[in-house]
Amino acid sequence: MSNYMITGTSKGLGLCLVKELLKRPASSVGLIFATTRSAPTAALQKAIVESSGRVINIIVNPVDIESVKAALREVEKHLNGAGLDVLINNVGAGPYANGIKNMDNLAEIFNVNVMSVQNMTTVFLPLLERGQLKKVANITTTVSSFAWSDAFVRLPAPAYKVTKAALNMLTLQWGMEYRDKGFTIFGVSPGWCKTDLGGEGANLEPEQGAEATMKVIDAAGTEEIGKMINIRLDGYGDGPGDHYQGGAVPW
Amino acid sequence: MSNYMITGTSKGLGLCLVKELLKRPASSVGLIFATTRSAPTAALQKAIVESSGRVINIIVNPVDIESVKAALREVEKHLNGAGLDVLINNVGAGPYANGIKNMDNLAEIFNVNVMSVQNMTTVFLPLLERGQLKKVANITTTVSSFAWSDAFVRLPAPAYKVTKAALNMLTLQWGMEYRDKGFTIFGVSPGWCKTDLGGEGANLEPEQGAEATMKVIDAAGTEEIGKMINIRLDGYGDGPGDHYQGGAVPW
Repeated sequence: MSNYMITGTSKGLGLCLVKELLKRPASSVGLIFATTRSAPTAALQKAIVESSGRVINIIVNPVDIESVKAALREVEKHLNGAGLDVLINNVGAGPYANGIKNMDNLAEIFNVNVMSVQNMTTVFLPLLERGQLKKVANITTTVSSFAWSDAFVRLPAPAYKVTKAALNMLTLQWGMEYRDKGFTIFGVSPGWCKTDLGGEGANLEPEQGAEATMKVIDAAGTEEIGKMINIRLDGYGDGPGDHYQGGAVPW
Repeated sequence: MSNYMITGTSKGLGLCLVKELLKRPASSVGLIFATTRSAPTAALQKAIVESSGRVINIIVNPVDIESVKAALREVEKHLNGAGLDVLINNVGAGPYANGIKNMDNLAEIFNVNVMSVQNMTTVFLPLLERGQLKKVANITTTVSSFAWSDAFVRLPAPAYKVTKAALNMLTLQWGMEYRDKGFTIFGVSPGWCKTDLGGEGANLEPEQGAEATMKVIDAAGTEEIGKMINIRLDGYGDGPGDHYQGGAVPW
């Protein structure tokens, strides 16, 4: 039985990850700490009510280290001496900019996409050390791949690309340093999902992305450490933009 | 005759870049705007005095957009209608951390290594558009290469690696967007120099790094756009850490 923590679960992919875990028996998935910045949305509240106490909402601002420390104390009480097995750093933002010279929110987006991960991973490390799986999955995106940049040249989201590239290097550094301590720290690209971030033109329902993402997280082992792992889904193209063929995305 | 602007010229590589440019005749290098955050050091002051008016100190904090806008007005007065040809975003920081969980200055280092470049490039864009060369060279480092990360695993500078990876993606985005506008925007890794940042154990004098960096900047054309270009120096090893063989560093 493993305990999970997922950030950014009000809606979108994070909410679907919670619901995906709830499909599994309690013998496999124990507690699911679902973080939100404010009171849970109706959709998350529904999942909480239907979860028979397995989903626990934690209100935290992952960008604020003091808020994260307060969340740690709350989670510790619920775990009652048990560990946390899997931390999924999902919270993120990907705003558009009308030309890179007009990108005026880069520092703010860095906080959301990178500092949140550093804060959560650092503060929850003692609980993860007490867990069996010791997995940290950071949600990233293939649009942060340097190698595939030509394919995404028309996506006007420079702050997203820049900060997720930074997140990928943060993931790699954590992965390498904690490999010998039994940790599996890696990135996952959940595909292009129809969420507020992905937009209506996306090619996946968020439920599909969440299911495929959980498969990557389940399977991740030493081979995946530090890498950006793509989801695997059949029936899509094999170009960078719609490439869901699994494995490590080239940097 | 080309006009240059270099950030972070109090000491180290930035100061050596100013001195390297001063070796060239006034028919080749016109004005050199040498930015510092506070009053120039004795070493920079010496270069200013000996430059016959070619080196102009601009006091600016590149992290603060309002300070950068004030600097633009000052530079415009000196240029008197002429353009800026080359902007070298050199200012940077690379602090050590005793374990990645103890890295407590990531947001601050992001500001120094990335926001400074975004601010300077955005605000000085109109002057660069008026210049002939339209070059922006962002000083980066091979330790931010994902492909070479194993070689630098023992360098305890995670904030440096993470933020320079972000800078590389920022450079790539600028490079791709401004390619068709006649700009050459790229990164340069100046080698491991004996500066406050590089430390005494480095294998290059900062003068060597500056000379090799200027050769990269001189030669950069459409082929180099968006890439991280390594300096070229003979007589060093061919491993990632001491690899000065020129060309694009693998991401």
